Amino acid sequence: MRAFFNPDQLLHRPRTRLSGGELRPTVETPERAERLLEALRDAKVDVTAPGDFPESCLAPLHDEQYLDFLRKGFEEWSRNDGNGPEMRASAHPVRTRARVPRDILGRAGYYQADASCVLMADTWSAARASAMSALAAADHVLRTGEVAYGLCRPPGHHATRDLAGGFCYLNNSALAAQMAVSEGRRVAILDLDVHHGNGTQAIFYDREDVLTISLHGAPEDLYPFYSGYADETGIGAGVGKNFNLPLALMSGIAAWQEAMERARSAIAAFDPDFLVIALGLDAFARDPFACMSLRTDDFARLGEMSRVAYPTAIIQEGGYPTDELGTNLTRFLDGLTG
Amino acid sequence: MRAFFNPDQLLHRPRTRLSGGELRPTVETPERAERLLEALRDAKVDVTAPGDFPESCLAPLHDEQYLDFLRKGFEEWSRNDGNGPEMRASAHPVRTRARVPRDILGRAGYYQADASCVLMADTWSAARASAMSALAAADHVLRTGEVAYGLCRPPGHHATRDLAGGFCYLNNSALAAQMAVSEGRRVAILDLDVHHGNGTQAIFYDREDVLTISLHGAPEDLYPFYSGYADETGIGAGVGKNFNLPLALMSGIAAWQEAMERARSAIAAFDPDFLVIALGLDAFARDPFACMSLRTDDFARLGEMSRVAYPTAIIQEGGYPTDELGTNLTRFLDGLTG
Repeated sequence: MRAFFNPDQLLHRPRTRLSGGELRPTVETPERAERLLEALRDAKVDVTAPGDFPESCLAPLHDEQYLDFLRKGFEEWSRNDGNGPEMRASAHPVRTRARVPRDILGRAGYYQADASCVLMADTWSAARASAMSALAAADHVLRTGEVAYGLCRPPGHHATRDLAGGFCYLNNSALAAQMAVSEGRRVAILDLDVHHGNGTQAIFYDREDVLTISLHGAPEDLYPFYSGYADETGIGAGVGKNFNLPLALMSGIAAWQEAMERARSAIAAFDPDFLVIALGLDAFARDPFACMSLRTDDFARLGEMSRVAYPTAIIQEGGYPTDELGTNLTRFLDGLTG
Repeated sequence: MRAFFNPDQLLHRPRTRLSGGELRPTVETPERAERLLEALRDAKVDVTAPGDFPESCLAPLHDEQYLDFLRKGFEEWSRNDGNGPEMRASAHPVRTRARVPRDILGRAGYYQADASCVLMADTWSAARASAMSALAAADHVLRTGEVAYGLCRPPGHHATRDLAGGFCYLNNSALAAQMAVSEGRRVAILDLDVHHGNGTQAIFYDREDVLTISLHGAPEDLYPFYSGYADETGIGAGVGKNFNLPLALMSGIAAWQEAMERARSAIAAFDPDFLVIALGLDAFARDPFACMSLRTDDFARLGEMSRVAYPTAIIQEGGYPTDELGTNLTRFLDGLTG
């Protein structure tokens, strides 16, 4: 298998996230990528820099004004001397429609769903490079049929068409899926991050050509809180093409395996010819978010159960620094590739 | 005239607000109320503690689950040792509908629109007492016909039926108006705070019995950003009963007077028999928010132009600590009462 990573992905270096009502050191750090990279190298996986796909590859899934906000918003923010190095919104249009304001702080509240997706000087470069790693992985799978892994950081699955959130800016998994769609494939996305893939769901919610499945902690109790319920099954042409499999907090491998069986049935029924695995590693018991009970060996089990007959691209989502982060990845990959 | 204030309103002592992407000292402090109180005493205005109206007075305008969140949310938040003294949400349902989650952090994001309406141990006591001052002012006007002033702090006009925001928890001005409605009055609300009275608008948006008028900085450029446009005129039975009069940032008294003429015409056309003035003092040139150019004398002009033939209750909204804060209030009151 082949892995893709661009060192520009390390340029995004957020300092803080809002936790416990205070700004505390963030966990979505470049160190995450460095740990994953080291594990890949130890496992003798070939890691390649992605090619530079045209930015028009982002356009089918992301709003142009939103992309402009990501590209240029921080510069505009920085013109005000009173603004700090992390652009985060202080107010949002909550549960309401809204027009896009002119003021940059107003646009921040419009385009950022939370305080943990700060925009900094190099966020765009890193997010763009991360998306390129996803596109390169999809492209490699399409051309070779071989499994490929996009070491995508910052992650992507909480980003919608025009909303950043949960450390995510561009929806890498969705972009990988869309690349396969654009080559005529019928695509399933299997999201194993402990947090609901709300951005991916939103992007494909009315589409019948992409099946979205997410296993995650029950949204009543866990971020992103406002979606991820089992009764969210799609709208319009997309009805029946979205599966949420929420799990009780602190679930262990047995519950995850049971949900994986259901996911596998749904994938088989959809009968895709391309699979994107949105791979979070944050269901690990010692992950800083500490909301599930998976152990390192369990990631091998999830990898085995994710093995399908279709060409498969794996896109990195969450999973935060622990000593075992890299091993959890390679166990999953070993399980998947058998 | 009579003023109402309860010392419990000082119990809410937020430390920080999100500004420039960082947590910085807040401006919505007990000092605001102390300065206003001192000015009232210097002006020999009789300041009375409000009576304790039943909490059922809140029910017509505020959702019961939201009130429960305000009452008990902080206690629930505090059970987690990792949480700090200010409960603020870290993620929100932005531009989308949502179910109310079970987790307290998820409920915070559901019920708080921004990072500046933190919930602390005594927030409910203070917000409740502030609402009582508003109700007492309305009650006094209803019983005597005399002008009354509710020294309401924390303020209220950004709070909707079930959403706190912009330092606001309970919509004091709307509660004063509703008390008059419940006694058969036809009520107009004139909001002079520099920020759009978005909560008040939302509460009465579909109602024909309450006219809502707001003068404020243009929402393209100023908080609350997502409402306050001139074309928001009401829905259903409320069509034509909401007037937004946005003003360019840094406008001086001439622009405010022109908008006041329009407000007066709208009030005359509606022909109310009770007026609530939602009195912000933050259009002052030296207010910390520094977004308009009004001088102290200009508040007397606004007071004069707010004088109407109907019984009038004045409810304090924004306006932040400066040496002139108290004087700006008394000038307004002098102008109003002639």
